[in-house]
Amino acid sequence: MKEAEKPASGLTAALRRGELTSVDCPSREVFKHVTSLWGVLCLIALRDGTLRFSELRRKATGVSERMLALTLQRLEEDGFVRRTAYPVIPPRVEYDLTPSGEQVAAHVAVLADWIEENTGDVMQQRQARG
Amino acid sequence: MKEAEKPASGLTAALRRGELTSVDCPSREVFKHVTSLWGVLCLIALRDGTLRFSELRRKATGVSERMLALTLQRLEEDGFVRRTAYPVIPPRVEYDLTPSGEQVAAHVAVLADWIEENTGDVMQQRQARG
Repeated sequence: MKEAEKPASGLTAALRRGELTSVDCPSREVFKHVTSLWGVLCLIALRDGTLRFSELRRKATGVSERMLALTLQRLEEDGFVRRTAYPVIPPRVEYDLTPSGEQVAAHVAVLADWIEENTGDVMQQRQARG
Repeated sequence: MKEAEKPASGLTAALRRGELTSVDCPSREVFKHVTSLWGVLCLIALRDGTLRFSELRRKATGVSERMLALTLQRLEEDGFVRRTAYPVIPPRVEYDLTPSGEQVAAHVAVLADWIEENTGDVMQQRQARG
């Protein structure tokens, strides 16, 4: 993966310099939002285009209305998701990714897809060992 | 990012097919291990080469001995980290990444570094809105 071979920056560079105070906050919070179960699902689902709240909820089977709203609110505050409310009856609320959200969602998708594809190997190795 | 533009597989594909039962377990557990605070730090630190337990502990400021041992044990069970104990006195234990660990660590590093570099923008946007 080419991007991983670039000169170290961000967390990697901070780790090499022995400066880890920066890990806690606020970038740690942002990291938590985008790697939370529902955060990952929202980001990946929205990569395919704009979705209404009800559509997102159908995709994220098992999420409560409140939890989904909170997840989307955090991603909106982080600048990754844009919320558009239309003044119609019944109310219509749509979500899509901002340019920065598209970038972070792409990175999250690569990681999540790699894990989803490779977990079979992980389990096989675990059984072989034990 | 090129890899994100490949045909959908893994979680992305499952989401498109509406199959999300696979998200919970066991790939969700693996995802949690590699995106936990200390999991991220261990994976990124080990990308630079083999480290002793005490060296890892110095890099991960604030982690307890028990928590670091647990984090490394999980990553070892997932097949990402290899633990080598040398029969010497005092005991010497070293950790390094397996080939699969190098792959997952590269993806985690790209995401963590992107967030670390872009959190300044996130905060600016948050202040501008609020």
